[in-house]
Amino acid sequence: MESVDVVVVGAGLAGLTAAADLVDRGHRVLVLEARDRVGGRTAGKLMSDGHTIEMGGQWFGPTQTEVLALAEAHGLKTYPQHDEGDQQLAWNGKVTRFGNDDPRLSPEAAAEVGRLTGELEAMAATLDLEQPWSASQADEWDGITFGSWLRAATDNDEALAFWRLFVPAIFAAEAHEVSLLHFLFYIASGGGIAMLLGTRDGAQDCRLVGGSHLISEALADSLGAVVRLGSPVHTIEHAADGAIVRHDGGEVSARRVVVALAPALAGRLRYAPALPPLRDQLTQQVPMGSVIKINVLYERPFWRDAGLKGSTMSFEDPLSVAVDNTPFESEHGVLAGFFEGVHARRVSTLTLEARRAIAIECLAKYFGSEAAEPLEYHEMDWSAEEYSRGCYGGRFGTGVWTAYGPQLSEPVGVIHWAGTETAAIWNGYMDGAVRSGHRAADEIHAALSSPTNGRPLGAVRFGQPSAR
Amino acid sequence: MESVDVVVVGAGLAGLTAAADLVDRGHRVLVLEARDRVGGRTAGKLMSDGHTIEMGGQWFGPTQTEVLALAEAHGLKTYPQHDEGDQQLAWNGKVTRFGNDDPRLSPEAAAEVGRLTGELEAMAATLDLEQPWSASQADEWDGITFGSWLRAATDNDEALAFWRLFVPAIFAAEAHEVSLLHFLFYIASGGGIAMLLGTRDGAQDCRLVGGSHLISEALADSLGAVVRLGSPVHTIEHAADGAIVRHDGGEVSARRVVVALAPALAGRLRYAPALPPLRDQLTQQVPMGSVIKINVLYERPFWRDAGLKGSTMSFEDPLSVAVDNTPFESEHGVLAGFFEGVHARRVSTLTLEARRAIAIECLAKYFGSEAAEPLEYHEMDWSAEEYSRGCYGGRFGTGVWTAYGPQLSEPVGVIHWAGTETAAIWNGYMDGAVRSGHRAADEIHAALSSPTNGRPLGAVRFGQPSAR
Repeated sequence: MESVDVVVVGAGLAGLTAAADLVDRGHRVLVLEARDRVGGRTAGKLMSDGHTIEMGGQWFGPTQTEVLALAEAHGLKTYPQHDEGDQQLAWNGKVTRFGNDDPRLSPEAAAEVGRLTGELEAMAATLDLEQPWSASQADEWDGITFGSWLRAATDNDEALAFWRLFVPAIFAAEAHEVSLLHFLFYIASGGGIAMLLGTRDGAQDCRLVGGSHLISEALADSLGAVVRLGSPVHTIEHAADGAIVRHDGGEVSARRVVVALAPALAGRLRYAPALPPLRDQLTQQVPMGSVIKINVLYERPFWRDAGLKGSTMSFEDPLSVAVDNTPFESEHGVLAGFFEGVHARRVSTLTLEARRAIAIECLAKYFGSEAAEPLEYHEMDWSAEEYSRGCYGGRFGTGVWTAYGPQLSEPVGVIHWAGTETAAIWNGYMDGAVRSGHRAADEIHAALSSPTNGRPLGAVRFGQPSAR
Repeated sequence: MESVDVVVVGAGLAGLTAAADLVDRGHRVLVLEARDRVGGRTAGKLMSDGHTIEMGGQWFGPTQTEVLALAEAHGLKTYPQHDEGDQQLAWNGKVTRFGNDDPRLSPEAAAEVGRLTGELEAMAATLDLEQPWSASQADEWDGITFGSWLRAATDNDEALAFWRLFVPAIFAAEAHEVSLLHFLFYIASGGGIAMLLGTRDGAQDCRLVGGSHLISEALADSLGAVVRLGSPVHTIEHAADGAIVRHDGGEVSARRVVVALAPALAGRLRYAPALPPLRDQLTQQVPMGSVIKINVLYERPFWRDAGLKGSTMSFEDPLSVAVDNTPFESEHGVLAGFFEGVHARRVSTLTLEARRAIAIECLAKYFGSEAAEPLEYHEMDWSAEEYSRGCYGGRFGTGVWTAYGPQLSEPVGVIHWAGTETAAIWNGYMDGAVRSGHRAADEIHAALSSPTNGRPLGAVRFGQPSAR
């Protein structure tokens, strides 16, 4: 049987980062990836004009220092997200344009959103991001949905509409599908609501020349034969001194394992012995978001001629967010759009043609009749991807953080957990994935380098045998 | 390769019922069961006194006609749940006794519980149990947790304490972990709150001589070689005209498949092609409840001497429900107890000895010092069971019914779904499991008997290929 020090399950940013760190420190590593590509929830797609467009995660912000450092280390360059021209809001049947720096809301609603933002950020500031379940009000905040909090907090329809757009825009789920505690954790993890929302200097500040997936590809190139594609892992047999990882192409023994998958997918592997009750139940209740991302190629970025940025948010249309997604130095124009949360679920059962028609209709509403004449339409339903089963990430509904928080990243014997859902900083983003990979690699390096070399790092917490 | 008409995955009550129905109608069936026993969430355990005690589901009520008919058909007999003597309530540090027919609450709290029961049952009465998501207020009711509804509905502490006991007692989860819509559906599915709570003429009316698992064992006996134990299914390859089911011991081809597992476990199988997005996402968000059931054997049912029924509910102790569980014609006495919801999660990480000490301490508080001297202590943590991963059933948090309801039982090509979570009547109970088995068998018999014999019954709703 093949034998290494560490098997990493999953060649997304988290798994590849962990693998690279461990290889750098002299460990023998094998990365097993189910797909025939690396990159996980980032994915590039070649358009007919020769440019590659991002079908998954794509934006970077200045405080996302870990992923930016990784990109730079591999010689990759960023460029600013297009941010010139007026932005738009679709509501009450109208599409209204606003100056680039103006709030898209009425003064009353903007003030109300500002007030609620202040309240939320004050609550969020009390959280320890490494253990949000330990906050003094954690039980209270985890006991209600963000939607219920919101309904009690304001009756301004426009402000409510804003938040009901904001939540799917960051979770690909609805306000009633995340707990208030999770909402607070998530905004604090990313540095605040303005940071999450922002383009310039925010989470959508810049893009990578060639596409975000190039980071994973560069990592994989540097790892060479360490990364094995088309090898879905299905079973992990584990003991105090090591594990056997079984995949479709064979089996590998290792002293440690990193499972670098979202919790929902990690729960679908078989473990022998079976995982402890709390870890298992955690994986039953961190569902992935629902999002279908589209990229539409046009002859030119015609919206710019009209002084438009290409950025529209809609409080009432199924394609609730649209944005200029023209690649670096492209002579063409690209609009990206997102069906999120309930909208994604509704259109996911339609035919491609029907869904395309809805998307194009929305873009024509936002940007005029030229938007109805695309060169190409590309889409990716992340819920249909067998090895992602949703994006942007796993969300925590009521009660999950407080009941199962520690189980998110605490190792089970020789098995360690990575993935952006386990990150304290920039949870849910590419940067969080990279941070989680570093953290898992640090755990394993410490364990394999300790005098008790090979003994489990974390306490093994299997269920106690009962008297039966 | 072995070939049958129908493979049934899982030999719980749902799977065995479906198998028996299909065999009766002349189909060739194979049931593949992961465990080395049948019965799923029912399980008998032999005590040292020669009596078998139920470690899982055990009670029957008069409206649970399908499971009772099945038991009777196999010559099994029921006997009344012990219901004589005073009942008790532990609250505010005291254990208070009440007459058997008296409410255990103060008059004010009893009136408030009555008022809320009326409100809830009036709402529940508007639901179509086959499609609770279609109710006119479904979005509203699915958008909040039962806990949030409750907090807005009353500020009577004792009434709140009652509901916060009631919810774990039926869901093994907390009030903030189920949506109001799910709560309403569930109480309507079982015939109302009094029915769910009740002993005589209620859901805890009677037991089966020898234990509830005997129904599954009798079904399995009658099916003979049709049932294969120790054969965990891991993969279902399916096409329009049939499927190949792979298990640890081999593979079987079939024209139809019944997956008779709770949604959380059904989601852990591999499907090729992968399941449609909505069906997959459903399985990510119907987590199993958390319950550790104990049975404590005593020399005699000493509590009866003191005029006690043996039935205690506690608003403040970890073992929140205790009940006389003495088997039919036993000369000894047995008390059953339940750690549920948050309590189960908290004690699940303790050692057996520590958990046993907590349980016995609670029983001694309720029933006196004799309770501290048991002959035997038995427990079963259903969350630790690899092939159940929780009890009593899968619960629906906010947003799940309205986003994914139809996917619960709608076939995907040749794959049909059974299990108590798919039942309209007595969902979550043994009776619901049996009903779901009949329903799945009916679907398949109709499909295999139709002129388009072998063609899929339901529309195949795979994700449409995208333009990429």
